[in-house]
Amino acid sequence: MNRAAIEQYAIDNLNNVTDYLRIASISAQNKGIKATSTWIMEQFRQLKAQRVEQWTDQGGNPVIFAELAGNSDKTVLFYNHYDVQPPEPLEEWHTQPFEPVAIDGKLIARGVCDDKGELMSRLTLIKYFQEHGGLPVNLKFYIEGEEEIGSPHVADYVAAHAADLQADACIWEGGGKDEDENFEIVCGAKGAVSFNLHVQTADVDLHSSLASYADNAAWRLVQALASLRTSDNKVAVAGFYDDIQPLTAAEQQATQAMDFNVEKVQANYGLKRPLITTDPKTELINGSTMTINGLEAGYNGEGVKTIIPKQAQAKLDCRLAPNQDPHKIVELIQQQLIKNGFEDVKVEYLLGEQAGRTDLEDSFIQLNHTVAQQVYGKQHVKLIPNMAGAGPIKPFLDYVKAPIALVGIHYAGSHPHSPNENIRLADYQAGTCYLAELLTAYGQN
Amino acid sequence: MNRAAIEQYAIDNLNNVTDYLRIASISAQNKGIKATSTWIMEQFRQLKAQRVEQWTDQGGNPVIFAELAGNSDKTVLFYNHYDVQPPEPLEEWHTQPFEPVAIDGKLIARGVCDDKGELMSRLTLIKYFQEHGGLPVNLKFYIEGEEEIGSPHVADYVAAHAADLQADACIWEGGGKDEDENFEIVCGAKGAVSFNLHVQTADVDLHSSLASYADNAAWRLVQALASLRTSDNKVAVAGFYDDIQPLTAAEQQATQAMDFNVEKVQANYGLKRPLITTDPKTELINGSTMTINGLEAGYNGEGVKTIIPKQAQAKLDCRLAPNQDPHKIVELIQQQLIKNGFEDVKVEYLLGEQAGRTDLEDSFIQLNHTVAQQVYGKQHVKLIPNMAGAGPIKPFLDYVKAPIALVGIHYAGSHPHSPNENIRLADYQAGTCYLAELLTAYGQN
Repeated sequence: MNRAAIEQYAIDNLNNVTDYLRIASISAQNKGIKATSTWIMEQFRQLKAQRVEQWTDQGGNPVIFAELAGNSDKTVLFYNHYDVQPPEPLEEWHTQPFEPVAIDGKLIARGVCDDKGELMSRLTLIKYFQEHGGLPVNLKFYIEGEEEIGSPHVADYVAAHAADLQADACIWEGGGKDEDENFEIVCGAKGAVSFNLHVQTADVDLHSSLASYADNAAWRLVQALASLRTSDNKVAVAGFYDDIQPLTAAEQQATQAMDFNVEKVQANYGLKRPLITTDPKTELINGSTMTINGLEAGYNGEGVKTIIPKQAQAKLDCRLAPNQDPHKIVELIQQQLIKNGFEDVKVEYLLGEQAGRTDLEDSFIQLNHTVAQQVYGKQHVKLIPNMAGAGPIKPFLDYVKAPIALVGIHYAGSHPHSPNENIRLADYQAGTCYLAELLTAYGQN
Repeated sequence: MNRAAIEQYAIDNLNNVTDYLRIASISAQNKGIKATSTWIMEQFRQLKAQRVEQWTDQGGNPVIFAELAGNSDKTVLFYNHYDVQPPEPLEEWHTQPFEPVAIDGKLIARGVCDDKGELMSRLTLIKYFQEHGGLPVNLKFYIEGEEEIGSPHVADYVAAHAADLQADACIWEGGGKDEDENFEIVCGAKGAVSFNLHVQTADVDLHSSLASYADNAAWRLVQALASLRTSDNKVAVAGFYDDIQPLTAAEQQATQAMDFNVEKVQANYGLKRPLITTDPKTELINGSTMTINGLEAGYNGEGVKTIIPKQAQAKLDCRLAPNQDPHKIVELIQQQLIKNGFEDVKVEYLLGEQAGRTDLEDSFIQLNHTVAQQVYGKQHVKLIPNMAGAGPIKPFLDYVKAPIALVGIHYAGSHPHSPNENIRLADYQAGTCYLAELLTAYGQN
């Protein structure tokens, strides 16, 4: 394998990545979905894929399915998504979010790490293989357009198309390097559930002089929210943590072997406050959280407007560990609010997905580990039970029944979901090489 | 006095009011200030006022001062303001806020009750008097353009122009009828202070999977705010209520004699929850409150965006009783936040004014009472120690040293500061008659 040639090839073909990044494909705002899915299908047609299909039978944004034949009987299924997070707040970008630019060895644009760069690394490698003797394994791609809004249709599509999706192994999106530059092989994902809280106290906003007797939706929301969190930042909802499946001994060991450098984390994000846990590694792998994503009530413009807001709302998510059920979690929260005296605070379930994990001892995971040690260096590879983020892994585990490895091109400063999202070109090159070695080894396995 | 003629005259000259309402004069957004002040000066010129001046020497939006000679040696000073609250939320208006329309005997527009209708009632009456034998008293007008942003320059202007403003009595804006259709003579105003809370926990919004260890500005703000309010909705700030001057026996009696109809209040505003006090009358007159006017953090658009907001802010005001100091109150809040462990939550003082009250036994207040009983009926008049709202009364009490009566044309459904602000034309007519009788009686006094 000529790694230097692949690294050069990745850079020579970078216009593929930038073309893709220029298409704003924001599922939360229903923007650019058709343009992006059409563009991706065209890429697979240019690669002469045996099958290129757009699935729409289960509703939602189309799923792109593609299949390419290789030189062995092994089949690897790739999961990617073509949608990205909204770019807001726009004023915090140093460049335009949908006009990719390369500065200081970094490629900057919304979606470049999550997850357009990874798909393009994979397609570029296919082209390279095709020009150098063919693909070492059969490849399938499942590329959805709703990952950033919680993949509401993935379970239906995977169940309906289970036969199409059969594979010996899956490679996911979203891996990369940690704060200490270790390459991570991640074996699962957390679950997540998104929901809104909403409260209305009057038909109209009131003059704030009436605060002498009239309740205030913003105060109700603040007091209701505060009642769900302890002063040491735990979730104060009865039963919230009960269903979490404890880590196995191997998972505990892998978890504690993870690097987690507090100083680097604080510097990367400019954290102003101490960490809210003394065991961040275990919390990242097997903890469950409740996060306020957004808060809104009343007047937030210039100057003062002395009103009592008639309504207030919060957007929240919970990150879930294996065995926590999204619907049950939201139900527990609603029950706790009622117990706490906030029966007027309504909980609206938006979407959720369960966590999922592949066994660390699985042979495909172990192959990833071996190849990664060759490519990134023996001391610079970590096996991680699951990522802290969520992903629609569970339906694939249930229906494809193949091991799943999450490997990718992120680094600790990639800022997924935030302004100035970026990847380092060196990571893009190395990730393409890694994949070349992995698929080659798997084909010879 | 021909009351029917005055009532007709008020309606015949209603185009004055609607012309004035069409000029959006929003101090919080710095809109329409010049156009409005110019328009008002032109009105006084048309009325052949002896003095029409625009004061700008103390900064801020110009103050309009005007003086008109009458048939007695008594001088009455009117206080009005030409600025209005921002019209937002626009989608809740049934008509356009700056296109006044009369529907079902109501005139609807931003500012019609607070306080453009009252000024126009007064100017219309001047014209009527001029056409029917002259003004019964000398009149002065102090019309400012910063009332809705807390009158930051009024104390300076009143101190600098104390000689110009000397008068025997003052008539303020902002009175009217209560829920039970009683005409109120209000003898003072509460104070108020506006401030922001702001917290920042990171340099960037974070992916919410990092909630396992990273703090969240929205949670910090929610927990900080909740720590300032008890479960029974009192302000939980040490010393907050300490300086409040207790009501005198006469004030207590007047307070308890006020009408307060819980069912009507709830229906007027569509309140969803019980009142937060068992003694709303005393709270309205002499209570102090802390109100969240606005809350904002993170992502509040369509769909989901699973971030940890890096910053969060709240806009608040406190309504103050006589003797509470705005600066001290905000200082107490900052100290309490530090005591509660929220030293990272910053308090920003915006603006404040002290409460002020005229003695209920004052002869000008008593004259108002007598005249009001004649115009509105003996059983339908209430003396109120002070309004629940704030107003820049204190500097006038300090420098003009004259009694102040707040009388006007509101009713309980006027919705000042809210969408669909309106007055009833019958109240506009009656209020103009009332003023005619009051000024005539005062001139003969």
